[in-house]
Amino acid sequence: MTNEALELSINLVWVMLGAFFVFFMHAGFAMVEAGFTRSKNAVNILMKNVLTISIGGVVYFVVGYAIMFGDSAGGFIGTTGFALSGVEDIAFFVFQAMFAATCATIISGAVAERTNIVAYMALVVVMTAVVYPVVGHWVWQGNGWLTVLGFTDFAGSTVVHLTGAVGALVVAAMVGPRIGKYAKGVVNVIPGHSIPLGALGVFILWLGWYGFNGASTLAADPSSVPGVIANTFLSASAGVIATAIYTRFRYGYIDGSLTLNGALAGLVSITAGAANLSIVGAIAAGFIGGIILVEAVRFVEHKLRIDDPVGAIAVHGIAGIWGTLAVGLFDITGGGLFYGGGATLLGVQALGVAAVIAWTASTVAVATFVIKVFIPLRVTSEEEIEGLDIAEHGAYAYEMQDMFKGVTKSNDSFAQRLTKLGKTPSPSNTNVQEKRV
Amino acid sequence: MTNEALELSINLVWVMLGAFFVFFMHAGFAMVEAGFTRSKNAVNILMKNVLTISIGGVVYFVVGYAIMFGDSAGGFIGTTGFALSGVEDIAFFVFQAMFAATCATIISGAVAERTNIVAYMALVVVMTAVVYPVVGHWVWQGNGWLTVLGFTDFAGSTVVHLTGAVGALVVAAMVGPRIGKYAKGVVNVIPGHSIPLGALGVFILWLGWYGFNGASTLAADPSSVPGVIANTFLSASAGVIATAIYTRFRYGYIDGSLTLNGALAGLVSITAGAANLSIVGAIAAGFIGGIILVEAVRFVEHKLRIDDPVGAIAVHGIAGIWGTLAVGLFDITGGGLFYGGGATLLGVQALGVAAVIAWTASTVAVATFVIKVFIPLRVTSEEEIEGLDIAEHGAYAYEMQDMFKGVTKSNDSFAQRLTKLGKTPSPSNTNVQEKRV
Amino acid sequence: MTNEALELSINLVWVMLGAFFVFFMHAGFAMVEAGFTRSKNAVNILMKNVLTISIGGVVYFVVGYAIMFGDSAGGFIGTTGFALSGVEDIAFFVFQAMFAATCATIISGAVAERTNIVAYMALVVVMTAVVYPVVGHWVWQGNGWLTVLGFTDFAGSTVVHLTGAVGALVVAAMVGPRIGKYAKGVVNVIPGHSIPLGALGVFILWLGWYGFNGASTLAADPSSVPGVIANTFLSASAGVIATAIYTRFRYGYIDGSLTLNGALAGLVSITAGAANLSIVGAIAAGFIGGIILVEAVRFVEHKLRIDDPVGAIAVHGIAGIWGTLAVGLFDITGGGLFYGGGATLLGVQALGVAAVIAWTASTVAVATFVIKVFIPLRVTSEEEIEGLDIAEHGAYAYEMQDMFKGVTKSNDSFAQRLTKLGKTPSPSNTNVQEKRV
Repeated sequence: MTNEALELSINLVWVMLGAFFVFFMHAGFAMVEAGFTRSKNAVNILMKNVLTISIGGVVYFVVGYAIMFGDSAGGFIGTTGFALSGVEDIAFFVFQAMFAATCATIISGAVAERTNIVAYMALVVVMTAVVYPVVGHWVWQGNGWLTVLGFTDFAGSTVVHLTGAVGALVVAAMVGPRIGKYAKGVVNVIPGHSIPLGALGVFILWLGWYGFNGASTLAADPSSVPGVIANTFLSASAGVIATAIYTRFRYGYIDGSLTLNGALAGLVSITAGAANLSIVGAIAAGFIGGIILVEAVRFVEHKLRIDDPVGAIAVHGIAGIWGTLAVGLFDITGGGLFYGGGATLLGVQALGVAAVIAWTASTVAVATFVIKVFIPLRVTSEEEIEGLDIAEHGAYAYEMQDMFKGVTKSNDSFAQRLTKLGKTPSPSNTNVQEKRV
Repeated sequence: MTNEALELSINLVWVMLGAFFVFFMHAGFAMVEAGFTRSKNAVNILMKNVLTISIGGVVYFVVGYAIMFGDSAGGFIGTTGFALSGVEDIAFFVFQAMFAATCATIISGAVAERTNIVAYMALVVVMTAVVYPVVGHWVWQGNGWLTVLGFTDFAGSTVVHLTGAVGALVVAAMVGPRIGKYAKGVVNVIPGHSIPLGALGVFILWLGWYGFNGASTLAADPSSVPGVIANTFLSASAGVIATAIYTRFRYGYIDGSLTLNGALAGLVSITAGAANLSIVGAIAAGFIGGIILVEAVRFVEHKLRIDDPVGAIAVHGIAGIWGTLAVGLFDITGGGLFYGGGATLLGVQALGVAAVIAWTASTVAVATFVIKVFIPLRVTSEEEIEGLDIAEHGAYAYEMQDMFKGVTKSNDSFAQRLTKLGKTPSPSNTNVQEKRV
Repeated sequence: MTNEALELSINLVWVMLGAFFVFFMHAGFAMVEAGFTRSKNAVNILMKNVLTISIGGVVYFVVGYAIMFGDSAGGFIGTTGFALSGVEDIAFFVFQAMFAATCATIISGAVAERTNIVAYMALVVVMTAVVYPVVGHWVWQGNGWLTVLGFTDFAGSTVVHLTGAVGALVVAAMVGPRIGKYAKGVVNVIPGHSIPLGALGVFILWLGWYGFNGASTLAADPSSVPGVIANTFLSASAGVIATAIYTRFRYGYIDGSLTLNGALAGLVSITAGAANLSIVGAIAAGFIGGIILVEAVRFVEHKLRIDDPVGAIAVHGIAGIWGTLAVGLFDITGGGLFYGGGATLLGVQALGVAAVIAWTASTVAVATFVIKVFIPLRVTSEEEIEGLDIAEHGAYAYEMQDMFKGVTKSNDSFAQRLTKLGKTPSPSNTNVQEKRV
């Protein structure tokens, strides 16, 4: 083999490894979102996650990739390469397809426990076909208008995470809070059903992020990859440490779910600047991100009064903005304010953030309005109280779900519950042995 | 280093990565099988899985690899290389050893919740020493009789999955259904105990499949790997989408466990043809595989009346046949019926399927009969009702198992249960603190 | 690219892959330790694990790496490279940082369910800043005094595992056993709360070990890597088989948690000699390691009367010693006693073990004494009985924790429990909806 062929081969392994790890992030999202919500909605959130990567992959293949990386119409949108027609680099497509679905799945957590699964799936189509690919075109296609201005977002603090979070915020606002979240004038905490699942999910996401950031170099380059990985690792670490310390002082405890989210905040905070910050800068970015997270969760919940069961808007949105701006502050390659680069880059970063918020908020709002015409955005109150697992899937997530009858106010049998919701027990659940053998 | 050495080195990384991911599939199988069965048998199914990869690895090292890849006796069986004697490519052995154990573990799910663990272990020895290696020899050794005929099975829809599934079907039929499965003349649903564990397992298996199919190229080749991975990803995605849509219309719900199995059906459907199908062909194969799955599960359960708690026979067997035949339909490299290749390849694929079914069914049946002479195939009724965890491992899987006493009809203490089964509480469980401190 | 650059690039991919997998071992440790302890302490042990990798990473960056790999002062300690100043190979740092945190996290399992989290975090700092880096310097820096003597520890049976286990033993002894462990004169078994979580953790650790041992070659070398991986795989397999068989005869059952630990014992047993043993030697080392484990767990629990909830001291310590000595017996590169190499290497291995025990035991003991002056080592009895999740995190790990009220002797509400412990319910838990909607 020639040296050129060998180089292609090495870079292929690196990008494929990255793609596999980003794929695995969907397992991480699934576990985080299932763990941080109630058991009566666990099947539903798992279905939403597995459907997101599936629908997202196919839609991105047919439409999204072309809009993102096709020949540019005015730096705004791609126009060629639908169904990969004429596209040669399939490895690059695979890597990007995993990213696209990541962006979409951020919404699922924020709107969990009350959103109609069909309406949600329609949103996934919109996100992966148009909303996200357009943002990606602006920043990563090469001729996008934000690229031309010098906007810097290495692996997607804005492109992936902020886009997903703005979508999440708009949809969560339109769907409304879960029943009971703002009952009796107070902001009630509705704890998730399994912190171990949530913790596993965070570890998987953290692992996946090494592929997310690391393979965004697109080459196994010894001059850039190690720094990117060290930054990713230590920014996440700093996020954890910051959240643990900060919640200890703020609330009197090292808060479990916030500290787990602190790792994610640290990761989002370094995603834009992984290739541009020093390790010390990365630690600073992650540490600040971990503190911002705690207040951002409160802000969304108490001030905006938007019910986001897993904290996705704070983790991906507020930390996404911070990570994007942090490049303007800490960039060591010439543009960072703190490194004598002036405020120009910081201004461009802020402009990019504003543009992405405006685009995503408006398109997602319109799309959600249109979807609402055809499909109710949320399940009925009866279904929500009974649990989306029974209402939308005719199933329990756990064997021990039987034992929650007292807790969920009903002693009805499984079949009785279904009937009360106006559902017909299907062949796959009529004969369920409620008395176990 | 020379270019040849560099090439070896790159391919080593790729094949090792693949081996690690295929290894990790055993965690996926363990989680799927544990999640889709009852909590009283969870320790048992986990033990079966961890023992399968362990016993399978050692047996394949000593015997299986030689039978599979040794010098061929008439295209039927390998004869050299026992204990890797004279074998130089240890990396290839490692990759293949992970595959061998995968084949064996398919049985464990189908015969879960009632099979004696020692009898099962004997079956693992037979599968990894002889049954699977002979099939592998026919198709992958290079001089096997099916290879000579032109049979095409890139990564093992037939070699791994169908072989495992036929073994599963034979043993499940001989062991008989779980108590209560066909009680009172109806086909009862016995739900698993944790859909989240099952979902995690499916994500892990899907991840592992990128190594399973991807590294079956045995080289980090930019001209083949990206297509293989894109096909694997999108066939699984199409399987999920198909099953979700189809169960919604068939049963009125997006069925949780079937949709998760739909991902696996999509993966099995593309395993034979990952390197020979276009992306559109892969999506078609996976989509059809996802629909076939739903009916196949019903067929096995209602028509064959074979009790397969996790749907392994349908996922790996019926979808395995479909995936193998799909090559004959969709192959774009010259042989596919739909691409002007005529029906020859399709005929060869069907012949290979028939031959593997005949070989596996007969050898596994004989082996199971022989094992039955020495070891009872299933636990006693008392042990099955009490749970295999207590009967075979003297343990509970969960702390909260105490709380299932009412559900499992008994208020006996842990030690009382053991004694009633005629078991002696061992030093490691006599002093269990049943009242927690 | 030049051939030199290509080689760097390939080795980069290999070492990064290894680093990612070793990182993921922290998810494995978290799951094993959570699964093998009680649910009332699950949030706490998960927090300890996520904080270990985070604190460990930052401390190793600032101090530990310099002490381990800096210019040597007399073969005893490194003196340069603090905060990576002057360090060029960042990839190597990343790989080593993951190792450092691994060493520290071994302690968390052994001291679980009663140790103050702040005291534990102080120990993590000591372990990753000084105790472990000094041992690493002796063996892996190149000029360390044990290296000069010929001490052989390929990937860390002694450097990582024994060091962690000795630290674990010292701290566990000083913290004392959990309430009830040695109550009424008997050694009580306190079962963990979820064997499935534990099994998942073991599979993740086993996967991670391919990176741990495999990338310790630091190069994707076809002449060494395949053997290392085959040895790692089959030694673990042999450990599982040995423990399953041995517990069946010793206790009458294939013990679930011991067999899972058998895989880890097999892995620790081959870590020192992965590059120096034949496959048959590796199987022997793992098999013996699996048997040693069972007796070692008993020895620690019954003879030393040290309460180690997850068996970490036996798995990492006793098997670590065995793995280190096994090199002296089975080394095929010239030094093994059984291969005609005489007893010299065996003697050096024993000396290294003794030196590491002496160093670690004394420094950890001193550090723990000093920490105890400022921070209580363990929580109060009330807090321990109520669970560390409530006491240290103001939270439950599981939704169904409500249902353990009877089991945990109290019918108090969540807020009442907090108040009785003298804790102030924080804004994040005062309004918890105890009656679920």
